[in-house]
Amino acid sequence: MKAVLELTNELGGENYVLWGGREGYETLLNTKIGREQDQMARFLHLVIEHAEKIGFKGQILIEPKPQEPSKHQYDFDVATVFGFLQKYGLEKKVKCNIEVGHAFLAGHSFEHELAVASSLGQLGSVDANRNDLQSGWDTDHFPNNAGEMALAFYYILKQGGLGKGGFNFDAKVRRQSLDPADLLHGHIPGLDTTARGLKGAVALIEDGEYDKLLDGRYAGWDNGSGKDILAGKLSPADIAAKVHADGINPQPKSGRREYLENPVNRFV
Amino acid sequence: MKAVLELTNELGGENYVLWGGREGYETLLNTKIGREQDQMARFLHLVIEHAEKIGFKGQILIEPKPQEPSKHQYDFDVATVFGFLQKYGLEKKVKCNIEVGHAFLAGHSFEHELAVASSLGQLGSVDANRNDLQSGWDTDHFPNNAGEMALAFYYILKQGGLGKGGFNFDAKVRRQSLDPADLLHGHIPGLDTTARGLKGAVALIEDGEYDKLLDGRYAGWDNGSGKDILAGKLSPADIAAKVHADGINPQPKSGRREYLENPVNRFV
Amino acid sequence: MKAVLELTNELGGENYVLWGGREGYETLLNTKIGREQDQMARFLHLVIEHAEKIGFKGQILIEPKPQEPSKHQYDFDVATVFGFLQKYGLEKKVKCNIEVGHAFLAGHSFEHELAVASSLGQLGSVDANRNDLQSGWDTDHFPNNAGEMALAFYYILKQGGLGKGGFNFDAKVRRQSLDPADLLHGHIPGLDTTARGLKGAVALIEDGEYDKLLDGRYAGWDNGSGKDILAGKLSPADIAAKVHADGINPQPKSGRREYLENPVNRFV
Amino acid sequence: MKAVLELTNELGGENYVLWGGREGYETLLNTKIGREQDQMARFLHLVIEHAEKIGFKGQILIEPKPQEPSKHQYDFDVATVFGFLQKYGLEKKVKCNIEVGHAFLAGHSFEHELAVASSLGQLGSVDANRNDLQSGWDTDHFPNNAGEMALAFYYILKQGGLGKGGFNFDAKVRRQSLDPADLLHGHIPGLDTTARGLKGAVALIEDGEYDKLLDGRYAGWDNGSGKDILAGKLSPADIAAKVHADGINPQPKSGRREYLENPVNRFV
Repeated sequence: MKAVLELTNELGGENYVLWGGREGYETLLNTKIGREQDQMARFLHLVIEHAEKIGFKGQILIEPKPQEPSKHQYDFDVATVFGFLQKYGLEKKVKCNIEVGHAFLAGHSFEHELAVASSLGQLGSVDANRNDLQSGWDTDHFPNNAGEMALAFYYILKQGGLGKGGFNFDAKVRRQSLDPADLLHGHIPGLDTTARGLKGAVALIEDGEYDKLLDGRYAGWDNGSGKDILAGKLSPADIAAKVHADGINPQPKSGRREYLENPVNRFV
Repeated sequence: MKAVLELTNELGGENYVLWGGREGYETLLNTKIGREQDQMARFLHLVIEHAEKIGFKGQILIEPKPQEPSKHQYDFDVATVFGFLQKYGLEKKVKCNIEVGHAFLAGHSFEHELAVASSLGQLGSVDANRNDLQSGWDTDHFPNNAGEMALAFYYILKQGGLGKGGFNFDAKVRRQSLDPADLLHGHIPGLDTTARGLKGAVALIEDGEYDKLLDGRYAGWDNGSGKDILAGKLSPADIAAKVHADGINPQPKSGRREYLENPVNRFV
Repeated sequence: MKAVLELTNELGGENYVLWGGREGYETLLNTKIGREQDQMARFLHLVIEHAEKIGFKGQILIEPKPQEPSKHQYDFDVATVFGFLQKYGLEKKVKCNIEVGHAFLAGHSFEHELAVASSLGQLGSVDANRNDLQSGWDTDHFPNNAGEMALAFYYILKQGGLGKGGFNFDAKVRRQSLDPADLLHGHIPGLDTTARGLKGAVALIEDGEYDKLLDGRYAGWDNGSGKDILAGKLSPADIAAKVHADGINPQPKSGRREYLENPVNRFV
Repeated sequence: MKAVLELTNELGGENYVLWGGREGYETLLNTKIGREQDQMARFLHLVIEHAEKIGFKGQILIEPKPQEPSKHQYDFDVATVFGFLQKYGLEKKVKCNIEVGHAFLAGHSFEHELAVASSLGQLGSVDANRNDLQSGWDTDHFPNNAGEMALAFYYILKQGGLGKGGFNFDAKVRRQSLDPADLLHGHIPGLDTTARGLKGAVALIEDGEYDKLLDGRYAGWDNGSGKDILAGKLSPADIAAKVHADGINPQPKSGRREYLENPVNRFV
């Protein structure tokens, strides 16, 4: 770590990704999970300490992954990483590098992991390789789903971009793809897909209807009692009294999911 | 069954789908699987016998589904249904009605089930509802993936259409979607997605490059020794002797997967 | 194949397992699935032809597996293999070698695959290695679940054993298990687990209550109208007329699943 | 919440479980995930505020569950809950109620969730119902796997018990199980399985070999340089210098997984 971090710094690297290839367990039977967390946190403190010492200004990133090669990786998904970082006071020092396929293997959509990370201030960089939808291991395919990329860019643009982070393909051509040209035929549409996703997200945001609908759904909490509840001004007893006094009886409103799929599909 | 089949006939119905809602087991512990197969086959023979007796000219269809409500449905997927039909001499009398989401729950892509069914003469009709990619139960969403539909139509068009079968949505709006308008907002993009998929498949076939590449991959088996092997003219000993005599040493060729994704993505 | 089959014969081998390591597709986009089935069937005919020519008296076995290394293996599970064998007239010549972990990866329990195979006359041999329950790839662990083994032996004993087939471990110690002794510590409990399962199945059958309960569930079909229906003596019209005339209104009966788990757990 | 919490208090209840039946999203498209977390945290603060006000001395518990009825529940698993609680300063006020089947649906073993929760001080109570291993939805079966229970009790006993928490079955008999007696046949073996698991865990701990082996694996970090590293006394530069000076070259040691499975299996 020391040597590679120094090398990254000398080369002007702006990101240092801790890929969790061995940071998990093969079996709980030989594992003290709390102790391993403590030790992993210590290691991470050493990384940060050394980065600061040598003047590295880039991002330190953890790449969430649920399993493989171990049965259970400690960096299972963004929410797990965030809990770990907070426990050891590291959440301001480390961000996440999110991979499409790792999200899928953890039981999440790619946009879920981005939305979660962004809401927690943890969205630092992206590995764009997707997973086969029927394979239970990490397949590292090139991107070919522009809609998935558009939703990803939506969250990235809404937070003002990735800063020092970026979009990386560490995708691979398939075992059957033996020709040098296959590498080009993988990368070119991968880039085209990414570009098409970016353009879709820009169009979605510029159109504005989607954000307006989304904001509208939460508008009731922006003033009046809703605002007071969120500000901690009302106790359960206050709220109950108010409900009884004013005869408050909120009616369910449609989530309008099908309607919302339209602007998204239109711009991709 | 008797009453509904007669009603279907009177109404001019062209398809009679046997949806396997209870045709499976909750636990193997109380199940004799061979006996249940025999009984299910007898029932199917009764259906066909009655259909013929009343002059029903439509298709009899089984809808493959891997699970839910039972733990294991006997009509798990197309390949399973085909094995069952053959065992009881029913494979010429019954076809499959394939649902996008059921394919996914069985561990297959939608196009896989269509390709398998078409190759076996079993592709009779389609339920277009897809599944959520992260939910482990049958979600019956409206279609919203034009690329998935395009690959489906490719197989349908290549076999000359669905005959008496068709495209059905038995999709549902979500639990949160409470307004009557939500029904429209589900159906309209579902139809648009389907139409976009159909147009993509037509364009892919009319362009012709994809089929040419695909045919090319198997061309070596259309003549010479390849043809003789498939025709059963050469024994293992003949083949081995020929390999040694002629110094045959086939070199692996690229599967060109990444290249093939291009025409498909271009037309969708 | 020719050379290895001859060698197997010379060494007195009684089983020849066709492990489907490459018999599947990486992507449907470069695959004609019907054509590949035809070619695979031709190959299988060549295997059988050569086995007969050299006088090999052992079993020819296919090992079902859903995926890995390919995205989709053609021998997905027992039901799929059986459909394939029937289509090409091979179901009397080839049986299945069933692996615990492959069953799990295909979305089935181990006992499911044994029950299905046995009911179809396809249960020829067993690979006893299980899968990790949280990993999405083939892990080949040693057996350590005696209950799972007991249910397996139940089906094997009920069909009179595996004939020329047997129980094989092609299990592996884990990557972390570096010592020669680890090999022993994997094999010994694997064998103990298998033995404990066998003893449990014997006890379950000798006790007799379980089989009696299971037989009882289907007893209503062994005589009277039930028997006539299964024998094809009654048409749907006959059955409907009888239901109306006799006021037949069958009441649901408990499947008694929880009760049935008791004898099984007691003997394991 | 206010009324039920007061009722719980009056009845002398010692646990108040927040079961997250609607605390998730159906689709990210209509969801601001950060905002919903803030609002959920506010609600939880109201619960705690009211509990303290009325003098409720019991535990407040969250029940992790990954999905169903929503596509994504915010209380996905223990690690996710812990991250959420920390963010809002609630980790000392709220613990987890862990369900066997929810752990499985989240991609974890039951013992994993217990081990994680215990290491974080979050293990408060248990729902003992397991899931079917092949079903993708919450099945709430009665416990029937004593080995799984033994590993659970190991973690519970090692932390000194569940305190005010307990073992709950909110398991259900299956849809086919119609008789009143089926309820008994579900509960009795469920309790027996639990008891057998407890006895196994006690025997495993009293025997002592397992804990000795487990402690031994980490012993190298309890003194010397290992201890200094964990105590933060050595910087990366110090460690690198020491490695070079002393020629430290640690050799991999076997994880002895297969050996460790023996004591566990022996006592269950």
